[in-house]
Amino acid sequence: MEPDLSQLEDYLASAGLDGYLVDADGSNSTQRYLSGFDAPDPFVTLFTPETTAILVSSLEFGRAKKESRADDVSRLADYEYRSLAAEHGTDEARARVVAAWLEDHAVGSIAAPDRFPLGPADRLRERGIAVEAETEDVVTEIRARKTDEEIEWIREAQRANEAAMRATNDLLDAATIGDDGDGDVLRYEGEVLTSERVKREIETTLLERGCALDETIVACGADAADPHDRGSGPLRPHEPIIVDIFPQSKATKYHADMTRTFVKGDPGAEIREWFDLTREAMDAAFDAIEPGVTGEAVHDAVCDVYEDAGLPTLRSDPTTETGFIHSTGHGVGLDVHELPRVSPDGGELEPGHVITVEPGLYDPEIGGMRLEDLVVVTEDGHENLTEHPIELRV
Amino acid sequence: MEPDLSQLEDYLASAGLDGYLVDADGSNSTQRYLSGFDAPDPFVTLFTPETTAILVSSLEFGRAKKESRADDVSRLADYEYRSLAAEHGTDEARARVVAAWLEDHAVGSIAAPDRFPLGPADRLRERGIAVEAETEDVVTEIRARKTDEEIEWIREAQRANEAAMRATNDLLDAATIGDDGDGDVLRYEGEVLTSERVKREIETTLLERGCALDETIVACGADAADPHDRGSGPLRPHEPIIVDIFPQSKATKYHADMTRTFVKGDPGAEIREWFDLTREAMDAAFDAIEPGVTGEAVHDAVCDVYEDAGLPTLRSDPTTETGFIHSTGHGVGLDVHELPRVSPDGGELEPGHVITVEPGLYDPEIGGMRLEDLVVVTEDGHENLTEHPIELRV
Repeated sequence: MEPDLSQLEDYLASAGLDGYLVDADGSNSTQRYLSGFDAPDPFVTLFTPETTAILVSSLEFGRAKKESRADDVSRLADYEYRSLAAEHGTDEARARVVAAWLEDHAVGSIAAPDRFPLGPADRLRERGIAVEAETEDVVTEIRARKTDEEIEWIREAQRANEAAMRATNDLLDAATIGDDGDGDVLRYEGEVLTSERVKREIETTLLERGCALDETIVACGADAADPHDRGSGPLRPHEPIIVDIFPQSKATKYHADMTRTFVKGDPGAEIREWFDLTREAMDAAFDAIEPGVTGEAVHDAVCDVYEDAGLPTLRSDPTTETGFIHSTGHGVGLDVHELPRVSPDGGELEPGHVITVEPGLYDPEIGGMRLEDLVVVTEDGHENLTEHPIELRV
Repeated sequence: MEPDLSQLEDYLASAGLDGYLVDADGSNSTQRYLSGFDAPDPFVTLFTPETTAILVSSLEFGRAKKESRADDVSRLADYEYRSLAAEHGTDEARARVVAAWLEDHAVGSIAAPDRFPLGPADRLRERGIAVEAETEDVVTEIRARKTDEEIEWIREAQRANEAAMRATNDLLDAATIGDDGDGDVLRYEGEVLTSERVKREIETTLLERGCALDETIVACGADAADPHDRGSGPLRPHEPIIVDIFPQSKATKYHADMTRTFVKGDPGAEIREWFDLTREAMDAAFDAIEPGVTGEAVHDAVCDVYEDAGLPTLRSDPTTETGFIHSTGHGVGLDVHELPRVSPDGGELEPGHVITVEPGLYDPEIGGMRLEDLVVVTEDGHENLTEHPIELRV
């Protein structure tokens, strides 16, 4: 994958800095993006208008030459790291090696990510190298504009995600409505069906399709009324169950994201109305999404639908704790939450932006309702990367 | 879990600093350790001799009060974050809030982890707060000494790990020796048994026991000769298969670690000898482990066994690419690799240190052999936290 880094070149020129430096392991998305390399321990990547260079341990040298997108791969041992470490300790040795390597690339001043590590930065400064934290989102804005290859990677992850959502549907289809002595519950294969059981099914399904995930939301009833509650315990009939899955492909490291809300049994009039409204809000967002439209305008389209129905939003009442109480969406890529914003402070959408559209309604007295698809902004509108149907009852 | 942080108090006193500050999300082990809190976005923890305080978003406030070990929980909104952000942007607003919160705790100078984020540090410095990267491993040394509760959490993770190793044994037991046209291979349920298939079994087994893992090593033949190769493709009979599993408990975030080497079929004389020698090296390490003994001495005990048998080690030949080409072990806890070192630069072992003992031999002509148990240093020696048997043939 060859990203277009011209915006970073322009930034360096206007800031009068020689290069952009990353010091992080491969789980850091900017490191992964610029180096095209994944390693479990921190390594260093330098971007300049002339080259992308990386500096790794001897252990990673062979693999880095094969796998990274750097033009230029060096190892610590090329700069007498061992003897420097024996004399000065490993931290100082590493700083001296990086400084010498930067000098070899004619770099005396660098921009760095805002969360670049403090100790290494201070040690480079002590050696006369200017180090400035870059706070203008230059690299994260570049990362937001996906190449065709990145879009395919996200699409593949969403296919795996849909298999997990189907597995969830299958569990709920097969479940029966029973009684645990404390009101109605769902039962499956002779046991109470819990949030934990459904999550395990989701994780196993994703694992078989090469995806991993840290967390999943399977939240029922009052849990579902809090958009950040992951859910736990028995799942109940006649109450909305929010299922929000955001896996990461192990191979490509790109994410997907999707939410559906299900009711087993009778949803009742209010939840039916919430479902219809939320579908309508989603469609209003889709109608708005095209290049040049702001994330704020897409968010406003969603708020309009809810407010026209007499429901509160954070736009109509910044202190409301019920109604539509989050933003409409976010970018998805190497990070599950990244630019662009689809929220009150969201800027212009551009072709290649991959964003979620996830309107929702919440009330502790009623429960929660959220629907979420993943779409890519195209030259003339958008394409929905999600194929899973939207249905309330299972 | 209440850690003993007196060493950090002593450090702050000797360095003349008011407090220790962490700015990271809950996946950062030092953040997790000091705050006792897990959140997906960065939050701030301050340790002083008087208090542990944390500063979180409103979203996390309720949960932080319930779950964290802080005496004192504040939220950004307590310091007018919203209006500061509207005026100065989110980065600068956050810096001003942290500075005001530090002032409320009478803190004007801080130590911070070496990989504390640069941008936030520079912005605190601009507001007159002294920020120094702590490079003496103070917190990681404290983290190395486990409490009884932490030891139980690691033991539980090792139990899950043993279930995964049993599942691996079951697969290899059930496999047959077939032919894929390119020499002998293992077959299972009508298909060639691959490294990937075994890893999936391991992951699924761990998932069912509440553990996750990023990577596993299932490496056969030439792959096994490189201690850092994760392994791929068909597993073959009559060749050593190294299985190294290092899961993390999802609930406690503590790790386990274990390695076994198996041969399906006839190992041959050389691998049999390597197995016996490696068991002997492991026992030599166990004999050495007690409080006051250095990690270096434990490593030397392993090197003695291999060198006495005429095999090279990095101690006898720093350039060797065959024989015993890594260190004997490492600490295990919130990080899978942490202090103490059981290597040429390993310092004194102390009660509560949880370490791996993992001698091994490697040669691209022969393959690889590694055995690894996890032990805790006790007042009068050590206790092995691993119950899985050590057997070569399956």
